[in-house]
Amino acid sequence: MQIDIQFLSSPPHPNLLSDRVVVVIDILRATSVIVHAMSQGASEIIPLATVEEAFQMAKVFPRGFVMLGGERESKNIPGFDLGNSPKEYVAERVKGKKLILTTTNGTRAFHVVSSGKEILAGSFFNIGAVAQRCLESNRDLFIFPSGDEGNCSLEDTLCGGMLIDLIIKKGERSISLTDASYSAQILYQRFKDNLVEAFHLSHHGKELINRGFEDDLAYCAQIDTTSLVPIFREGVIRAK
Amino acid sequence: MQIDIQFLSSPPHPNLLSDRVVVVIDILRATSVIVHAMSQGASEIIPLATVEEAFQMAKVFPRGFVMLGGERESKNIPGFDLGNSPKEYVAERVKGKKLILTTTNGTRAFHVVSSGKEILAGSFFNIGAVAQRCLESNRDLFIFPSGDEGNCSLEDTLCGGMLIDLIIKKGERSISLTDASYSAQILYQRFKDNLVEAFHLSHHGKELINRGFEDDLAYCAQIDTTSLVPIFREGVIRAK
Repeated sequence: MQIDIQFLSSPPHPNLLSDRVVVVIDILRATSVIVHAMSQGASEIIPLATVEEAFQMAKVFPRGFVMLGGERESKNIPGFDLGNSPKEYVAERVKGKKLILTTTNGTRAFHVVSSGKEILAGSFFNIGAVAQRCLESNRDLFIFPSGDEGNCSLEDTLCGGMLIDLIIKKGERSISLTDASYSAQILYQRFKDNLVEAFHLSHHGKELINRGFEDDLAYCAQIDTTSLVPIFREGVIRAK
Repeated sequence: MQIDIQFLSSPPHPNLLSDRVVVVIDILRATSVIVHAMSQGASEIIPLATVEEAFQMAKVFPRGFVMLGGERESKNIPGFDLGNSPKEYVAERVKGKKLILTTTNGTRAFHVVSSGKEILAGSFFNIGAVAQRCLESNRDLFIFPSGDEGNCSLEDTLCGGMLIDLIIKKGERSISLTDASYSAQILYQRFKDNLVEAFHLSHHGKELINRGFEDDLAYCAQIDTTSLVPIFREGVIRAK
């Protein structure tokens, strides 16, 4: 089993994805929202790249059945039901609902890696379950931190590094790491006792603090709060 | 002063380069060769992307005045005078000579970043001098590890991380790091007491060992053997 991770969020070469499990990670905050919402009973999530697509998609479904969520520049989108803070996505609001989500980096990322064999949403909330799922798949793994507007994101790479670390510790078979995977694992080892410290160093973490979302940093650093592994298939994210 | 580093060797967006000092790093082994050869008295080095270009360029100069060096798949190129081991580039061979160099990753990298304001060749051999030069320039810095056939290279990123670490320690003014720069600095801090350990983990390090160049790993890990800072300008690398 080979594990690769990409440090930039530019579209990876399709050869890097075919026959692989791909894990999309956007800790602050799209995949944290996705995992949290599904663990609170959302029936499915449609990740879309643009606000326009989201409004168009919402028209297709009966009112009250679907909710619009997401952000632009970390702020709520006018006309949307929910923002991009995982704490908003609680059972009272989202249980049984179909969510249409659009964010700056994370929702776009699922479409960028859509040629992968199986595409999972990863976050600290479900990292143990994602590691288990990767091991069971017995396929090579490509980790795709969705990044910060095309740039490397410390918190996403760190989560990828934790996934690598867990797989190595849980795995019995031989695992081969690329130089990027070694690098991500080392990053995780540096911050494993204080993930929030890394979130405070990161560009996007600082931006969220400036915009009043500091609480989300500690919230998104919670580990293994659910065993749910959302899978992206034919444009829709569902629980496995 | 902002410091950015790229983890992949895909061509960086020109916006990331304009008005910046760019440091090209290919520890195993192109920029190690370049810095070493210039410190041994080579008059100038022409880095080229292909073997064909190298042969064409050699015809332009009188025989005996120019030497051809480089590698493909880490092996010597038939018809070339020198390979890609820095140890070959000693004064007895290269003093006063013009070198035409072509390697898989490193020589190409100079052309990829040619829109930078000032383009330096960095290696562990001259890292202190490069850090000093970056501080004196008072410009933003873009570090370009030339990588391993498009992939992230542990040893190049590590050297970039050491450069960042040195600049922060030497610098008096405010320095802003991107998430990628923090990541590289953390990588360096992990391996700073044993660079060769990292070279043994790296994909390209393992490849060199398999091809009989293990000695080059320890050789290229030598720090501050010269204060020379080669600069790439109009297709040619010269000492400052």
